[in-house]
Formats: sequence, C-alpha cells, structure tokens
Amino acid sequence: MRALDVIFRPQSIAVVGASKNREKLGNVILRNIIGSGYRGVVFPVNPKETEIEGLKAYPAVSAIGQAVDLAVVVVPAERALDVTRDCGKAGVKGLVVISAGFKEVGKEGLAREKELVEICRAHDMLLLGPNCVGIMDTHTPLNASFAAGFPLRGEIAFISQSGAMLVAILDWSVKTGLGFSRFVSMGNKADLNEADFIADAVSDPNTKVILCYIEDVKDGEHFLRVADEATRYKPVIVLKSGTSQAGAQAASSHTGALAGSDLAYETAFKQTGIIRVRTMSELFDLAVVFTRQPVPRGRRVAVVTNAGGPGIVTTDSIEAGGLDMARFNRETIESLRGELPAEANVFNPVDVLGDARTERFRFAMEKVLSDENVDSAVVLLCPTAVAEPVETAEAILAVKEKYPQKPVLAVYMGGESLAPGAELLTERGIPCFTFPELAVRALGGLVNYGRIKERPAKEELPVYPDVNPEVVRRVFSRVREDRRRTLLGSEAMEVAAAYGIPVAPVKLARRAAEAVTHAAELGYPVVLKVASPDIIHKTDVGGVRVGLQTPEEIREAFWEIMERVHEHLPRALVYGVDVQKMYPKGTELIVGVTRDIQFGPLIAFGLGGIYVNLLKDVAFRLVWGMGEQQVEEMIKETKAYTLLRGYRGEKPRDIGALVNVISRVGRLVSDFPEIVEMDINPVFAYEQGAVALDVKITIG
Amino acid sequence: MRALDVIFRPQSIAVVGASKNREKLGNVILRNIIGSGYRGVVFPVNPKETEIEGLKAYPAVSAIGQAVDLAVVVVPAERALDVTRDCGKAGVKGLVVISAGFKEVGKEGLAREKELVEICRAHDMLLLGPNCVGIMDTHTPLNASFAAGFPLRGEIAFISQSGAMLVAILDWSVKTGLGFSRFVSMGNKADLNEADFIADAVSDPNTKVILCYIEDVKDGEHFLRVADEATRYKPVIVLKSGTSQAGAQAASSHTGALAGSDLAYETAFKQTGIIRVRTMSELFDLAVVFTRQPVPRGRRVAVVTNAGGPGIVTTDSIEAGGLDMARFNRETIESLRGELPAEANVFNPVDVLGDARTERFRFAMEKVLSDENVDSAVVLLCPTAVAEPVETAEAILAVKEKYPQKPVLAVYMGGESLAPGAELLTERGIPCFTFPELAVRALGGLVNYGRIKERPAKEELPVYPDVNPEVVRRVFSRVREDRRRTLLGSEAMEVAAAYGIPVAPVKLARRAAEAVTHAAELGYPVVLKVASPDIIHKTDVGGVRVGLQTPEEIREAFWEIMERVHEHLPRALVYGVDVQKMYPKGTELIVGVTRDIQFGPLIAFGLGGIYVNLLKDVAFRLVWGMGEQQVEEMIKETKAYTLLRGYRGEKPRDIGALVNVISRVGRLVSDFPEIVEMDINPVFAYEQGAVALDVKITIG
Repeated sequence: MRALDVIFRPQSIAVVGASKNREKLGNVILRNIIGSGYRGVVFPVNPKETEIEGLKAYPAVSAIGQAVDLAVVVVPAERALDVTRDCGKAGVKGLVVISAGFKEVGKEGLAREKELVEICRAHDMLLLGPNCVGIMDTHTPLNASFAAGFPLRGEIAFISQSGAMLVAILDWSVKTGLGFSRFVSMGNKADLNEADFIADAVSDPNTKVILCYIEDVKDGEHFLRVADEATRYKPVIVLKSGTSQAGAQAASSHTGALAGSDLAYETAFKQTGIIRVRTMSELFDLAVVFTRQPVPRGRRVAVVTNAGGPGIVTTDSIEAGGLDMARFNRETIESLRGELPAEANVFNPVDVLGDARTERFRFAMEKVLSDENVDSAVVLLCPTAVAEPVETAEAILAVKEKYPQKPVLAVYMGGESLAPGAELLTERGIPCFTFPELAVRALGGLVNYGRIKERPAKEELPVYPDVNPEVVRRVFSRVREDRRRTLLGSEAMEVAAAYGIPVAPVKLARRAAEAVTHAAELGYPVVLKVASPDIIHKTDVGGVRVGLQTPEEIREAFWEIMERVHEHLPRALVYGVDVQKMYPKGTELIVGVTRDIQFGPLIAFGLGGIYVNLLKDVAFRLVWGMGEQQVEEMIKETKAYTLLRGYRGEKPRDIGALVNVISRVGRLVSDFPEIVEMDINPVFAYEQGAVALDVKITIG
Repeated sequence: MRALDVIFRPQSIAVVGASKNREKLGNVILRNIIGSGYRGVVFPVNPKETEIEGLKAYPAVSAIGQAVDLAVVVVPAERALDVTRDCGKAGVKGLVVISAGFKEVGKEGLAREKELVEICRAHDMLLLGPNCVGIMDTHTPLNASFAAGFPLRGEIAFISQSGAMLVAILDWSVKTGLGFSRFVSMGNKADLNEADFIADAVSDPNTKVILCYIEDVKDGEHFLRVADEATRYKPVIVLKSGTSQAGAQAASSHTGALAGSDLAYETAFKQTGIIRVRTMSELFDLAVVFTRQPVPRGRRVAVVTNAGGPGIVTTDSIEAGGLDMARFNRETIESLRGELPAEANVFNPVDVLGDARTERFRFAMEKVLSDENVDSAVVLLCPTAVAEPVETAEAILAVKEKYPQKPVLAVYMGGESLAPGAELLTERGIPCFTFPELAVRALGGLVNYGRIKERPAKEELPVYPDVNPEVVRRVFSRVREDRRRTLLGSEAMEVAAAYGIPVAPVKLARRAAEAVTHAAELGYPVVLKVASPDIIHKTDVGGVRVGLQTPEEIREAFWEIMERVHEHLPRALVYGVDVQKMYPKGTELIVGVTRDIQFGPLIAFGLGGIYVNLLKDVAFRLVWGMGEQQVEEMIKETKAYTLLRGYRGEKPRDIGALVNVISRVGRLVSDFPEIVEMDINPVFAYEQGAVALDVKITIG
C-alpha cells in the first residue's frame, strides 16, 4: 500500500499553470490552497510571470530549487506531458492533474493518458486524475481543487468519481452543517483509484467513515483486497451508480467506464463488507450516525415516545428494517410501571403520554438503556402543550453519556417549536431526525456494520490433492483444435470428473449401435441427449429421451432425436448422442459460473430443473474470498436450502456433498481462467452424496 | 353519503365547556375558533359564566335560542352525555367531542361511548370523536381544535387517527411552508370515520389530494366502497401503521384497534386505488407533487442535467422506480445535437455539460418537453462556476407553462448558492428537491395515480344460474349436526361441485371393501386419502396412497393408511378413506380463501403442490369488487402464469377454466359467509379444462 501523505499532507506544493487572471482555474486553485490555511510552502509555476497572488513565481518546477512534494497541474492537456516530465526530473512525489483532454475525449486523449501514467511510473510519482476537481483535507488543512468553498471540518471522507457530485455535496454540506475530513475527485483514475483512497482513509486518524460515489471499479482484484480489509476497521459506504441498464449506458457514455455486471458489484460489496446504499440521502444519513454514535452490540431497539401513533410508525419501521423491538426484562417493566402514569405503555414502545414533561423522558430513557436486553434506543418527541424540547434534549444527552456503548437517535417530529432542542441534540452528538423512518434506517446501518466488523476472516478454497489438471488441459486443447468454444457433454463431464466432482458418466455415441454398446457398459435404464455444440436447451428441441430400458428403445430414441433436432435446428452441427445411465431423482439443483470482467468468476447456486429461470431462487458468490464457510452460507440463502434440510417430512439431503461440488467448481474455474461459463444443471442431491447430471462448459 | 358541511363550514358554533381560564382546553378552543378568522357566530357555553373572551356565554346550548350548526364539546366525560342530549334537543346538527374518557379507558368508557352514539343517532347529529384534537379548515376558515397553530392554506386534506401525529405535522408544515385545506383528528371514530372524511374531501372543492394516517379501518365494506369511488377523482394516500407484528400489538394497545390482517389491508388498498406509503416523508413528498403538478399520460421520463454523475444516479432511480427513460424521436436528438456542444449527451439523460448557463437548459427542456415520446421531465442543476440558479429556474418555469399536461420536477443539488433558485421553483409550482431519488419517487407517485384514475369500473362476480345453494346448505347442516367445523373431503367436493367447480369425484369408504366398490365405479387407477376432520396435512402422516391399480392394492393401501395414521396421530378421529379417481398430472395450482375481519373473503391463487409454502408464489384479491377481469389479473401477477402461458415449449393451459374456478369459489364464499376458510390444493390445469383434486372447507 502506498501512503498518500504527499497528496493529503504535502510539505510543499507547486501549482503548474498558476495564473494572475482570477477567472482562470490556475488562479482559483492557487487561491484555494492559500485560503484554506495551508501551512506548507506554495510555488506558483508560470514561465510568463515573476509573482502571482503575492508569491514568487517560477518558470518551471525544475527551476524552483527546493523540494516539491506535490504538483497540481492545470496546464492545457497538450503541455501536461512536458510538465510532468519536468516534475519527474525535479523529484516531485505526487501529481494532481486537473487538466481535461485525456481518455474522456477519445483515442488521442487515451494515448496521452497512457504516456502520462508511464512518465509518472518512471519517476515514481503518484498520480491523481487527470480530468478531476482536485482534493481537500480539512485537517491538514488543504484545498487543492478548483471547487468554490471548503467543507466544514469533520470525520467523513468522501471519494467521488464525479467532480460535479463532489461540488454539489460540498455546497450542500456547508448549508446543512455536515463536516468532512477529506474530499477526493478521482477524475479518470489513470493511476490512483478508489481502492487507494479507501486504503489511505482507513489509516487516516481524522477519518471515521468512508463514503464513495463510483460508476465503476478500476481494478477488481485490488479493490476486493482493500475493501475486505478496510471494512474491518471503518465503515465504507458506497453509492455505485449505473445499476440500471439505462444508467449503465449513461455511465459508459459519461466516463467511458467499462463496468462489470451490477450483480457482480452487488456480490463483491456484500462479500467485502461494503455497505451499499441506493440513494444519496441514505449515504449521508448513514455517514452522520457513523461519526456520532457507536456500533451497537445487537439489533434490539427500545423506543420511548410521548405519542402513540408515531410510536407505532417507529415500531413498523424497526421491524421492516430487520431490527428487533427489544423485550425489556421484568425489573425495567416494573420500575416503569411504578413511576409512569397508569395509562402509559410500559412495554416497548414505551409511551410516556402526551402530558409528559422532561422528567418522564429522562426516567424512561434511563431505565431502558440500563436494560441488558436493549442494544440501542430511539427517543421520539412530538410537540404537545407541555413538551420541553430543550430540557428533554439535555436530559437525553445526560442519560446517553452513561451508556457510551449504546447508540441513541432522536426524532423530534415537528417544526419551529422543536427546532432548538433538535439542534442541541445534533450538535452534541445525537443525530435528530424529523421522521421516524429516517432514524430507524440510519440505526439499521449501524447495526449491520456491527456484523460486518465482526465477520470471520477472509477464506480460501481448499487445495484438493486429488485434482487432475492435466486431463482438463488435454480436453481444452482438443476442443480448441476442433475450433469450438463449447465442450460436448462427455467432454465437460470429463473435466468435472478430473476435479473430483461426482458425475453421472456419459459416453458419446455417433451411431445408434454405439449407443446400445455404451448402454450395455453403463447399465440400463439410460438417457440419450443430443450431442451438439450448437444446442443449449436440448429439451426444447426434442433432444432428450429418458428411461430407455432396451436396445430397441435406444435405437428408436436415437433416430427420433436426430429427426426432431433436424426439424427444429436443421443447421446445427450434431455429433451424435450422449448416453448416460439414469440416476434416481434427487433434489434438483443448479451450480453455475460466469466470469465478470472486473471481479472474476461468479458462482451461482439454487433450485434447478426446468423452473430455474422461473423461480430465480439463486444465491451468488465471487470465487474471490470464497471458502467452504461462504459456500455453506450461499446454500443457506436459497429457498432450496429449506428443501435440503428436509422439507415436510422428507429426509435431509447431503449438504456437505453440495459444498464439496461447489468448492471444487470454484477451484476448477480459478485454475482455468479460460473457462468463461460453466453450468451444472441439474445436480441431484441425495441423502448420501450428490451427482452432476449435466455439465456445460464454454471456454474463451 | 352525508355531507359534512356542518362540521367544516358551520354557520354557528357552540363551545360547550368554554372557559375563562386560558390554560384550559375550553378556552384554547374558543380562542382558536375566533383567532382562525371564523366568520360565523360563536356561542361559549358555561353555566358559571356570562361572558368569555368578549362573547356572551350561555348556560346551555338549549338556552342559546338561535340555530347552532356545530357544538364542540370539551366537558369532562361524565357530563358529556347530558350535554349531548341538550344539543340534540336544541337541534344541533354536528358534534365534535374533544373529551377523553370513552372507549380508550376500558369497559365503562366503552358503554359511555355507545350511549353517546345512540343519543347522536336519535337526534340525527353527526359525531366526530370522542377523544380527538378537533378539526381545521383553512378555507372556511375554522380552527375548532386545541392544537397550537393553524396550517397554511393549501389543497391537502390530512385525516389522522392520531392526534399527536396531526399536531406534529401541523407544527412541521408551518416551518416547511406546506399548505393544507383541512386537518381532521378522528379520535375514537365512534361515528364518523375515515371513509366519511375521505368522501367529503372528494367533494370539497378546496382539496386536491387526500392524506390519511390510520391504524385501522372502522367499517371495511363502507371503506372499500368510498375508497373505490374517491380514488377515481382525487388521489388518496394512506400511511397505515401497525403493519409489523410488533407494530400491530402497539396499535391495539394504543387505540384498542381491532385490525384485520395487513395483507387484507394491502389488498384492499390496491384494489380500491389507494396509494399506500410506508413512510411519512413519502406521504408528504407525494402530497406536494399532487397539488402542484399534473398526472402524466405515461411513464416516459426525460432527464436534463448539467452533471454526468448525478444524471446517472437519476437514471438509476427512474428504472428502479418502475418508470421508463424516454427515447427521444429523431428530430429531438438532431436539434439537440445541432445546438449543444459536441461533448454533450443528446440522448436521455441529456447532459448540457458543466459549463452550461441558462440558455442550454432552456433549449434542452423545450426540446424534450415538445417530444411526443416524453411524458414528464426531471431537470437537474449542480452548482458550477457558471450556474445561474435563478435564471435557469425562470427559464424552466417559462418552458413548463407551455406544456401544462407534462409534469416537471426539479433537483437543485447543492446548498446556499442554489437556494434562491430552488425556492423560486417551489413557490411557482415546480417542486424542487435536493437529491434526485426524492424527485423520482414523487414522480412515480404521479405516474401510478394516472393508471389508478383510469382503471376500469369496479367489477362484480358473474351470477351463475347453475349453482345449487340447497346442496351446500344441506351439507353444512349435516356438518353442524356432527359438531364439526371442518368438512370431510367428500363433503367439500360436494359443496364445490354444487357451485359448478369441476372436481375429481370422491367417495368416502369406511371399510376396505367399500373402497374397492367405489373404485370399480370411479374407474382405476385411484387414490386413497385418509378421511379425518383432524388431519390437515395428510401426506405428512402417511395418509395418502396414489396410483392404485387393483382391488388388492386398494385393500393393502387401506390398512397401511390406517396403521400409519394411527402411529402418527393416535387420537385423530378417522372416518375411513376418500377414494378418488386418479387424474393425469396437470399444472399444480392452489386456490385459497380466508375471511378477514374487516374486508371479508380474501382469495389467494398461486403455484400449488408441496412447494406452495416454500415458494410463496401467490396473488391475492378481496372478493369485494372482484370480477373475471380482476381474476385474470390476479393470475397474471403470479409466476405460475409464466407456466400457464406455455413454458419452454409446453402447450398453454386453459386459463379461462381457472378464471371460472376462482370466480365460482368467490361466488360460493360470498353466498355463504359461514365459510371461514377454503382451500383447493391442488387444482390441476390442463390444455383443456381444470379440475379440483382436493378441497378443504372450514365453517364458522
């Protein structure tokens, strides 16, 4: 990991392309650096000037004659390469290239960007950008960007692939009082990318929570490794756009992002502990609670309210959000009953009633927070004739202090009359919302992160001593010689068997007589399936006949298959039929693999058979970071699991055997990156063991 | 429908329990009425005073000697009945009973409430409450409540079962500038309830959109009728709390609400065109757009933005929300291309680029709104160096005026620098949001309402001339004589057959020999199923044997069933076995009915067989308002429909036959309210026809 101190905490900065003209970015950036209170040395660089904004100007970075940590480059793209070479020669350590005119403008720009990266690499310079707004760090302090304004100091790092988004959020945050540790505009991500900035934010003592807006990920493997590590220390919340088809189109026309599938992103985020949000409001609501409140030990929430209806709405939100309403212990209930009026509800949600002043809130909060069955609390105040918004806020703050490990969020449901109390709470660290659902959503984020932080260490697939990669290589080279990409059923079975996946043996028969011979060897009854690299859905074209008991039946079936396939797909290349021994029917499952452009092989598991597309009961894992524990969890996420455990009186199936099949598939596709797709449909699971009935493999 | 003018627009009001003490509700209400600018006559009633707040006071309503439209009652509960009688005698037309101490305090209160209602009915007085905050109408104007403050004038009616919620929203609305036509606090809903207030708000010319917060519905049938009618004229948006189990518990302890199942509410709302929201923020965001923007003709949205990233986020929200990104026609694209810079995206989302001033926004908005493939537009402005928030707002407003039938929403993503523009837009009727997802969610509400408004008229089930209710009555009385509630399989089949539902005939055999005789009549092969009112899941206890081909097999199966059932459930009452002809396997479906306490019979349809609980592929309809069209739609909502249409090469099933089965089930449960549960599992659907294989009926 490269430390990014030269970017965020440089001792000295050169602004290359600094200008006297206050309209120009080269001037705006210089003034931003000075105006942010930066305490290092600043060197304007402009061959035509001797002094800019009261600072001595230099003709080139190499002419400065002092150490320069960071150069901010705002010259036109055509001059950027020369400037960069000069920076390299002068021993500059980091570069922020603001200039546009690179990858985003097409072929010529792409070539220029490549050269830019090469120069930086050659001189061991870190590169942010090009085509970015710049960076800000409120703790250094440093505003090396052309954005108008500087964020309030805080503990949120915001890393954005969109400069406009960054500027908009900056503007908005100042109005709403939200503080940030850093802002990063990543631009084209030619060198440094989201993974680098996430990693550095983890080690930044001023950052408590990391927010990202991204449209794609630059280097899947690097991202996974960094994210998996980072989320164990600090929450990483990501808004990834381009999730919809139209959105992805818009994204790729916007930054030329070569994105993987959204499903792969979703799986990657989940597996590495990233909290994915879908909306900007959620992004910032979560950020606020993460900086102000602790992660609770569990999901049991207490609610204290002075109004019944809003209390019920809060309760609904808690259950809808996957949290639990805490069940108080007897002492809590009794002491609430002893002290509160008879009509008060002493169970959760605690209703201290509309005539409650501060004292009842204080008492109830004290009691529920001291209950060991309560992990967190939401306190809800509605404007009543006797409500004391400020005094109640003070009481809540005082009680909360005694329970530092239990998060408390407030809902002050009202307007002007409650505002001073709401502000007091927010200022002193208890986020205060207008509507209950927002508080509950934010609390849900905290609870989820608790589980993320404590999750088991990253896994690896087992190493299987019994696999035979040589066989696989042989099959693949035969297929390639044949100028095919899709393996025949018998070939795919051979590959699977070579990796220890239990398969129902298959033999290719080119003629009817050969099919009869194979059947005699394999044992009756048998199945015939058309063997053709061109046919994916064999059943649909009449290419499958099951339960064949005699040589006559086999011969008849052979010719029938040939005829019907020819009828449906007259141009399909047909090798003959695959002959397979019929297996007793087990629970029908599917194991599939696709290869994502960013994140590598993605494994799917779920209910199989002809309904697989209909029911879509499928769970996913990236092979990256997948071990047997992950495989078991994947199985448990499906409805198929309910069947496998033994559904309505049936005996349970051999889940261990399925874990073995899936893990070995994972190992196979890891060892052979040329496998672009693989499908086992169905796998039959039995009380003892499991067997792959049909395997499809496509190589790239 | 009773017109509620005496409540919202009374000519004269008596405040019974008016007080000189400014701390008391009886004074607060009097001052609220006067202070709201009410233009009718106000009579304080208090036997101990001669004058209150400058008005002549009367000892009783009957002593006023002038016509009194409305009496607001704030005396203690013990005196409320006498006061009400006096009002009745004096010819008062409407009553708002603020006083608490009725149903909500237990048995005695409940009796008092009943008497209150009786008195009102006897004197033909409308009654709001008791135990409520009161009502407000900003157009009358009238504030007959004890809430502090009066809403801004507007076009939103807010009807609330929670007084605290009403007060909180009032307080909040004044701060945020949201205007209302009415506020109603319904209290205990002893007489007037949500249905009455919804109906009246529909006819209120000052109300454009109706919001409700409810914890339950008072009279299911009345509510359904009113809602179905109301939503054809004005949008009705409901936040119903108590959706979660814990929430429902909290609700029933709060108002003693006897709620039906949330599923029945969900179905009732859907069938009657009510827009159900889950959060308070959504409730009010929708309300705002409904009052300010028209309902679009379709779901095709254009986006115009000056920033790529936020444009993509907006696109994602649009697709996630079930809306479509509009595809512009060629002229639009060409004229955008002609006028905008080369780097601009001229497809949807239109990116006018970060250096756009007002003119580009104006041009792009004009072009996309004039495109006949665009039904609505979202315009998004991010703070850039050259952004002109106010001028751009003016341009948007001017363009929008030319397209009154196309809604336009704005997103000004930023803070202080954009605030004046955002305010201008909001004031002049284009709601302006900070984040795109909020605008899109609100737009989604408008689009949905378009479909709701134009939906077909309420349906009725067909009247079947061939049904035989006499048979059903006979079976039911036999079952009752037997002191049973669950029908035997053969009885349930008889009932179904009497209503023209095609069934696989079943005969009850008490002995093995009888089973053989039945089989000879029905034809082999047959199925035997244990006949017992105590056994629900027959398969689970070994109570079913299929595919029996000979008398020997039947005899053997008979004894095996008896033995295995006895093993599993030694205490079950067993009548023998049901003998049924085996039918060829069709697509396995389920039709079920439960009876909701509020909304009557609720029909379920979905995939059947042993996986029904696992897959939960079920659609629901209330029998109320269900006709054959609704039944067809219900079928189409399921995954089963994909199978029925002919899945992967299979022939389509007879959907008409299924519609017939479901409709006849609906007719049966409507005609016989004593049916509390009915299940047909499975129904087999064939290419021609459908047949019920197993029918269960429970009567109450």
